[in-house]
Amino acid sequence: MSQPLPTLPQGAVAGEIHIRVRYAETDRMGLLHHANYFVYFEQGRVELLRQSGKSYKDVEDEGYLMVLTRIEAKYRKPAQYDDLLTLRTIVERTTGVRIDHRYELYREGELITEGSSTLACVTREGKPQPLPDFLSLRRKQSAP
Amino acid sequence: MSQPLPTLPQGAVAGEIHIRVRYAETDRMGLLHHANYFVYFEQGRVELLRQSGKSYKDVEDEGYLMVLTRIEAKYRKPAQYDDLLTLRTIVERTTGVRIDHRYELYREGELITEGSSTLACVTREGKPQPLPDFLSLRRKQSAP
Amino acid sequence: MSQPLPTLPQGAVAGEIHIRVRYAETDRMGLLHHANYFVYFEQGRVELLRQSGKSYKDVEDEGYLMVLTRIEAKYRKPAQYDDLLTLRTIVERTTGVRIDHRYELYREGELITEGSSTLACVTREGKPQPLPDFLSLRRKQSAP
Amino acid sequence: MSQPLPTLPQGAVAGEIHIRVRYAETDRMGLLHHANYFVYFEQGRVELLRQSGKSYKDVEDEGYLMVLTRIEAKYRKPAQYDDLLTLRTIVERTTGVRIDHRYELYREGELITEGSSTLACVTREGKPQPLPDFLSLRRKQSAP
Repeated sequence: MSQPLPTLPQGAVAGEIHIRVRYAETDRMGLLHHANYFVYFEQGRVELLRQSGKSYKDVEDEGYLMVLTRIEAKYRKPAQYDDLLTLRTIVERTTGVRIDHRYELYREGELITEGSSTLACVTREGKPQPLPDFLSLRRKQSAP
Repeated sequence: MSQPLPTLPQGAVAGEIHIRVRYAETDRMGLLHHANYFVYFEQGRVELLRQSGKSYKDVEDEGYLMVLTRIEAKYRKPAQYDDLLTLRTIVERTTGVRIDHRYELYREGELITEGSSTLACVTREGKPQPLPDFLSLRRKQSAP
Repeated sequence: MSQPLPTLPQGAVAGEIHIRVRYAETDRMGLLHHANYFVYFEQGRVELLRQSGKSYKDVEDEGYLMVLTRIEAKYRKPAQYDDLLTLRTIVERTTGVRIDHRYELYREGELITEGSSTLACVTREGKPQPLPDFLSLRRKQSAP
Repeated sequence: MSQPLPTLPQGAVAGEIHIRVRYAETDRMGLLHHANYFVYFEQGRVELLRQSGKSYKDVEDEGYLMVLTRIEAKYRKPAQYDDLLTLRTIVERTTGVRIDHRYELYREGELITEGSSTLACVTREGKPQPLPDFLSLRRKQSAP
């Protein structure tokens, strides 16, 4: 846990969380099942948002549902049961209607999995809508 | 799959489904993770209801939410990855506000896990409400 | 379920399975949670293999572990609770050490999600190894 | 989080962890799906063991597999998405071959769910075996 992660470009909107691999998340190989990395990524997005002062629960309760249109993971090394991992979540790009994230999952400073995703904003009825201001402006707000 | 299950008492409201243990449902021991049996039990309840001509989705969309107040499992033998299991779901007792189910999970005719649960009916706001007629009368309807 | 799927190119190694969306697989939006599509894709691969006369369990027990190096999903329309979906799994390319799959998930004949993945073969100790013959030759075997 | 939990009897072997309800763990009702409470209970057991200086991973790697023979939950109030919960895990009884645990899940000092379970120790082949000393003696060790 003590190893430093690579430095991010100045002004990057990013955050880090620590996640312990649960027994229920492993599979017959003894490894973290591949689908569960996406659950971690989601947790990374939620905590990144919270760090900016907003809970995703509130966002959703205000009628802004963030749905995935695409997600991907590249697995370099497997995560094992009970590993204590560090997930870095980075806002890659924000437009008026979409947010692209990038994910880097580390174990003791070593990058073991990478990911990326695109979120779109929809209404409770599933219709596309513009991102709320506090989301679309996040990048600018945190720039120097 | 071909082994017959024990005979049920006459008039019993019960149904059987077959479930294949998925890889993602196993854990580091190579066995079906114990929490996933409850997902199977839920599927048993849903299919038992469908067999009586109603989908649980419709029930919920009509404003009747069935929430668990208690659930239990007794594990005799572990289910393995790729096992093709037979789940028998039995309505044990129905009152105006609750349904008790019993579950029997078989592999090749051998009982490997048993369970039981109690469901209560609540409104969308979480307030207790009487069961809808088609649920509370199920036992009588199927009696001879 | 009755709608025909698009025709596949001749000689394609592909299979179809039907999957009912479970309650436990939904999330707060009432939709199939995005990580669970990958569990379905896995089931698609396993059943495609079984259709060729081999269980993945046996493959793994013989010491050939198939691990994902990459997986992706593109979500067009959300799957809802209780939907009965058709998943088509296609072997896109097989080399001596990898298998690329493609996935198409349909609801009533409409394509709602697409995916792709790359599997590599490793030993029980996690070292890369060539695919067993019955896997690397699958494409040719099924050609006319 | 600040509310104190009820006092435990002197000498009790018990521990507390905090768990945030993940989006993927909710269901169509917007609540923590009932099967996921058992995943939390498992995490409670694992962290209670770690607190006594041992990781469950090591225990298992030494050939002692702890399997559930019974588990139960009683749901009083539902946990919601994003709730920050406190789980108290208590060793209720330890014999030479079994451990009984009790679970209390709190939200802001209020007990929302209770549970109990029995674990047995088996070999890698699934045969019953006595608990390792450091587990069967845990109760005594921590007594005054």
